[in-house]
Amino acid sequence: FLSPALVNAETASHPEQALHGSYKDWRVLGVSHRLDKKYVRAILGNDIAINAARSGKTQPWPDGTVIAKLSWKEQTHPRWPQAVIPGEFAGAEAIIKDSKKYPETGGWAFGHWEGGNLVINDKEKTATCFACHTIMKDHDYVFTEPALQ
Amino acid sequence: FLSPALVNAETASHPEQALHGSYKDWRVLGVSHRLDKKYVRAILGNDIAINAARSGKTQPWPDGTVIAKLSWKEQTHPRWPQAVIPGEFAGAEAIIKDSKKYPETGGWAFGHWEGGNLVINDKEKTATCFACHTIMKDHDYVFTEPALQ
Ligand code: HEC
Ligand code: HEC
Repeated sequence: FLSPALVNAETASHPEQALHGSYKDWRVLGVSHRLDKKYVRAILGNDIAINAARSGKTQPWPDGTVIAKLSWKEQTHPRWPQAVIPGEFAGAEAIIKDSKKYPETGGWAFGHWEGGNLVINDKEKTATCFACHTIMKDHDYVFTEPALQ
Repeated sequence: FLSPALVNAETASHPEQALHGSYKDWRVLGVSHRLDKKYVRAILGNDIAINAARSGKTQPWPDGTVIAKLSWKEQTHPRWPQAVIPGEFAGAEAIIKDSKKYPETGGWAFGHWEGGNLVINDKEKTATCFACHTIMKDHDYVFTEPALQ
């Protein structure tokens, strides 16, 4: 099991060493069905995120938090059409908390996984992510309320 | 972190010792939005289930597999009404593979968590679960196709 490298899209020729690990073994913080995008999603957290959520310390989320959002095209279950389930995989995105490194975007970097590597989005893309997540400024820019049952 | 006991509803005065652990640290096998029940769900697997899914050995699922289905009432996100997210928690159900112990129901027991304990359903309730899951007999009675991206 190899840890993926954290790659900054702007300095992709000098990938930093893995800070955040793969989301594949992370635990679940929530699920969603985006009617606008026709995606179903799983929201996962790394250990720092899960510990913060379990101890209720998410305002703000601690440095080192990474939250992953896995998206699949919605599909109806072939034998139970009232169940909307994951179809084709549509990508894994991330928010990464480092309040010292990313002060201009609320302490968060916005990124995505590319072939096992967590890549930080370039400035332009980050601006679109941040613009939308700004709706949640009073919740530290995070939409997901951890569902920990 | 205490392992919960496995309790058989019919012999609840003699709970067996924890065989299956709590689902709280399990990893995700899928998500769903049940339009008929108005639930959103996370489907999680214990280590045996995850390893089986990752190695593609789920026909049949190995003995020791436990798959958990967490259900929440659907709710729209207060600031993004096109996102359907978990509302009130509606329970955690399980299927438990032990081909020697449960031959009459395809090798599976049907159960649910009650205050941290995994309780095997009584015969009558099991019959309703099994009747519906029988639609998936040619997939070892499991609806969820692991989504492992
Ligand atoms: C148009 C609005 C919008 C844009 C643009 C947007 N997001 Fe989100 N994001 C949401 C909503 C709504 C949710 C919660 C519901 C869901 O799961 O989709 C969310 C959830 C997330 C989550 C899970 C953590 C959380 O906040 O709940 C991550 C990670 C995430 N987005 C990353 C990104 C990245 C990376 C980008 C840009 C590439 C981005 N988002 C752009 C609306 C947006
Ligand atoms: C009316 C049909 C129906 C009945 C009755 C039913 N199920 Fe299911 N079950 C489904 C469907 C459809 C799915 C997959 C979609 C979803 O997540 O709801 C599922 C999924 C599951 C899963 C996740 C693993 C899998 O097969 O995908 C578990 C665990 C589960 N059911 C347990 C139970 C238990 C325990 C009972 C009885 C108390 C029960 N089910 C009764 C239809 C049913």
